[in-house]
Amino acid sequence: MKFKISAELSYKVKTDTTFFFNIQAAQTRSQLITDEQIITTPAKVKIESFELGTRKARFLRVQVPQTDYFKISYTAMAELKLKPVNLKRAELQVSTIPPEAVSYLFPSRYCQVDKLYKFADVEFNALKTTYAKVQAISNWIHRHVHYVSGSTNASTSSIETITQREGVCRDFAHLGIALCRAISIPARYFACYAYQLNPPDFHACFEAYIDGRWILFDATRMVPQHGLIKIAHGYDAADTSFANIYGEADALNVVVSCEALDKRRFEKQADKLKVVCYE
Amino acid sequence: MKFKISAELSYKVKTDTTFFFNIQAAQTRSQLITDEQIITTPAKVKIESFELGTRKARFLRVQVPQTDYFKISYTAMAELKLKPVNLKRAELQVSTIPPEAVSYLFPSRYCQVDKLYKFADVEFNALKTTYAKVQAISNWIHRHVHYVSGSTNASTSSIETITQREGVCRDFAHLGIALCRAISIPARYFACYAYQLNPPDFHACFEAYIDGRWILFDATRMVPQHGLIKIAHGYDAADTSFANIYGEADALNVVVSCEALDKRRFEKQADKLKVVCYE
Amino acid sequence: MKFKISAELSYKVKTDTTFFFNIQAAQTRSQLITDEQIITTPAKVKIESFELGTRKARFLRVQVPQTDYFKISYTAMAELKLKPVNLKRAELQVSTIPPEAVSYLFPSRYCQVDKLYKFADVEFNALKTTYAKVQAISNWIHRHVHYVSGSTNASTSSIETITQREGVCRDFAHLGIALCRAISIPARYFACYAYQLNPPDFHACFEAYIDGRWILFDATRMVPQHGLIKIAHGYDAADTSFANIYGEADALNVVVSCEALDKRRFEKQADKLKVVCYE
Amino acid sequence: MKFKISAELSYKVKTDTTFFFNIQAAQTRSQLITDEQIITTPAKVKIESFELGTRKARFLRVQVPQTDYFKISYTAMAELKLKPVNLKRAELQVSTIPPEAVSYLFPSRYCQVDKLYKFADVEFNALKTTYAKVQAISNWIHRHVHYVSGSTNASTSSIETITQREGVCRDFAHLGIALCRAISIPARYFACYAYQLNPPDFHACFEAYIDGRWILFDATRMVPQHGLIKIAHGYDAADTSFANIYGEADALNVVVSCEALDKRRFEKQADKLKVVCYE
Repeated sequence: MKFKISAELSYKVKTDTTFFFNIQAAQTRSQLITDEQIITTPAKVKIESFELGTRKARFLRVQVPQTDYFKISYTAMAELKLKPVNLKRAELQVSTIPPEAVSYLFPSRYCQVDKLYKFADVEFNALKTTYAKVQAISNWIHRHVHYVSGSTNASTSSIETITQREGVCRDFAHLGIALCRAISIPARYFACYAYQLNPPDFHACFEAYIDGRWILFDATRMVPQHGLIKIAHGYDAADTSFANIYGEADALNVVVSCEALDKRRFEKQADKLKVVCYE
Repeated sequence: MKFKISAELSYKVKTDTTFFFNIQAAQTRSQLITDEQIITTPAKVKIESFELGTRKARFLRVQVPQTDYFKISYTAMAELKLKPVNLKRAELQVSTIPPEAVSYLFPSRYCQVDKLYKFADVEFNALKTTYAKVQAISNWIHRHVHYVSGSTNASTSSIETITQREGVCRDFAHLGIALCRAISIPARYFACYAYQLNPPDFHACFEAYIDGRWILFDATRMVPQHGLIKIAHGYDAADTSFANIYGEADALNVVVSCEALDKRRFEKQADKLKVVCYE
Repeated sequence: MKFKISAELSYKVKTDTTFFFNIQAAQTRSQLITDEQIITTPAKVKIESFELGTRKARFLRVQVPQTDYFKISYTAMAELKLKPVNLKRAELQVSTIPPEAVSYLFPSRYCQVDKLYKFADVEFNALKTTYAKVQAISNWIHRHVHYVSGSTNASTSSIETITQREGVCRDFAHLGIALCRAISIPARYFACYAYQLNPPDFHACFEAYIDGRWILFDATRMVPQHGLIKIAHGYDAADTSFANIYGEADALNVVVSCEALDKRRFEKQADKLKVVCYE
Repeated sequence: MKFKISAELSYKVKTDTTFFFNIQAAQTRSQLITDEQIITTPAKVKIESFELGTRKARFLRVQVPQTDYFKISYTAMAELKLKPVNLKRAELQVSTIPPEAVSYLFPSRYCQVDKLYKFADVEFNALKTTYAKVQAISNWIHRHVHYVSGSTNASTSSIETITQREGVCRDFAHLGIALCRAISIPARYFACYAYQLNPPDFHACFEAYIDGRWILFDATRMVPQHGLIKIAHGYDAADTSFANIYGEADALNVVVSCEALDKRRFEKQADKLKVVCYE
């Protein structure tokens, strides 16, 4: 399955500013990214690209002098190679979690695991398999939290979402992650492009560590889960934000798109890809 | 400078439990750790040791079956090789922060940077050098936050400390980290053994990224800063906790010690080591 | 039904201190309080008694000079005259709430109504009668929040209880109040002595305004609801606390008791008094 | 001094809705309100007026059926009779606070006194007179909190303001109240019309109980403090909000004005009215 993805972000830059953009799709075993293009207006800005450790985030650090209009555009082709996943449906033991997954058990900025033990334990822990637990978490969020554009901001975290019961994709993901970790299941944030997201925008889901693999969950159920192009995974939105701004700049516009090149084939795959792993 | 360090933690283990202990001193360029010994009671428990990525944490994963009394003891010799640091006293530009330090700019569980921009900017950002800024932060915390044993818990975070004005070493460190990051200075948590800490316990400080090095700050001013043996650094206490417990266990006792082998020589070094870097 | 109630509070008073005690039972149409006795050790302290407006609280303001041991003892006889309540089971309209009940719609310190609208609306508002709604709220709290002694403190509020799912009677009451107000039902805090509370202590419930009367609810279900002696009602624990301390004093001990004079008769009344109104 | 005040609030009312408006100026010894007019569009709505106990708030309860446009207009003449206040500048003893002021010591929704004891005590309590303490609080807020329109919302409370250091008049008042109460000085919210407020709007200040009188403080320093027309005082914005809405309605517009009839005389009084009491 091939997709054409693009993002265009524009700003009024009021002082010399350093941006960290995190908008390039990740290079992973599940997705091949080609034909990448990054164009800026004005063209002459210093751009440096680097990866952040184990998080698969490909940061672009861009120095922009003061200007009334700065724009960065990214386009790429993404080929998804997802395979059906057969879960053994066992129960995860903390004693067997591999080191690289262990730190996804810990609390993070937007996922205050330490405040959710009781709720998560009572509500979800009695289920028999790890997959059933995470699915129950995702279902609970879908049923109890309302998707309301603009209802939250960059400081909203999972304990507010569980109380106030509204949020956007980012909040749905944070709550899913926090609840998984609270019952000792490693979980991480998944920032992505999403095919058929309406209105088009960046999207966020979460991955839980089940049977030795990172399985994708989207509590918003807004898009087919086999049409996502991963940008990065991380602890939460704190380390996978699509733009970190050091300086003073006002966002003017964000335009994101994700088009499938063969829509029919995409639809056909839906049945086989009910459980998805973006490796 | 040589130190003998030890830690002894005991628990009543009510169900089969997996512990992640983070009590071994780190192997770094500044400190040589030898003669390490780990003994458990009962002796027959499964122990596995691993490191967490870039964080220098050496985790011990221990599986303990239900028992009325479980104890883990750690002893080691630590040789500190600290050198005087001459700071150029320049101002850090975000554009020059190396990739491995970038993620220490982001908000984390106990350091809600996103809520402290205004305060940190107004209070500390006008100073000319990065060192002066961090020193002002450390001084502010020392002056305004009171060290009160038992005043906080595992959910206390920097925004509570700045409001409630009391806490323990962990809270002092979190607030220091949060304020540094809020003015774009990478900062990280520093968990350690501390010589002359009274009463003896684990200790926590913070490191700020200045002139290309991680400089140590201790806003509690409870101990000489050239007598610390690093256990781990990390985003905050969430990923450097000395014990994470998966299962049910009640802590019975924690006994920590840190003895200098040559006290006189230690005192003499104080003057040369006003600014310290634990690499 | 007659009860003998008593409370004995002792303190180490480290500086000259003013106490506001709120431990005397209220004089209301439902309860007749007689044989009241207040004794202090030392005997010579200045005591002044006053009521706080519409709240029925009978405050004792006591000036205590520095002393290693101060004790206040209160005893009284309370005669409860509760009558069966027949609710019309209608739905309350905000347009008909009498002025004296209106302010019990507003948010208060521990009842952050403004953060619970969505949850309360979705979960409880579809029910047809006001009584059914409040009963559903009380049931929800009973089912989802665990009574854990010592799990919370004087700063814990309803939004923490709904997240962390544990607390004591005070927290159960606060959450009940907050959820009622969030769907436009006036609700107030009810501080009391409670017959058969085990271990004996002060108790807290909440009252909701239904069919023109204040109906009692106890989400803890720890005691029969027709054996309560009201001390005060108010917005929440902020204005009905049994002791406010201005000065420095350490609590040494609290001993509370509530004995029925005719236990058999008390048991017999249980069936008739399923719905109770303490006027 | 005479003022002409007016307020005009308009809404799109999406379901039958009950409004509680709190926009009429209070009748007090310091201000005489005459020529009051309340006009609604559509004209035929049920209006009922009532006062809330000791709070001086004059509520208008208005039932509005669904309509695309509802407007309520209030106009009145207000005559202020303020006299110079000579404070004895003593220190308030909790033992002498009259009963009617006692409840203004307690925590309330937006004034979490219980979390601010340490800060308030260390920062302000060493000063000798109650007036000096409150003035220091007002100065501290003025210096450390930035007035930023739109920076906060209806859930923002004093502990957020002290951390995030920005807010509007309501937040300045809440923080002032919370800090006063934290050092045992009764303080209350003061909702008002304000002459020379720019842009015109409702305004909020706070009153502290000093030398037996309620003295006005405005930490925003946006307007002369002898040109305020009191609407209500209360615990905080929770019980003095200018509009509480039960139903579904979108605010369309708020237009507030306050004009002095004799501007020259107003200016002349400034010197004599440095310390003001609105009784």
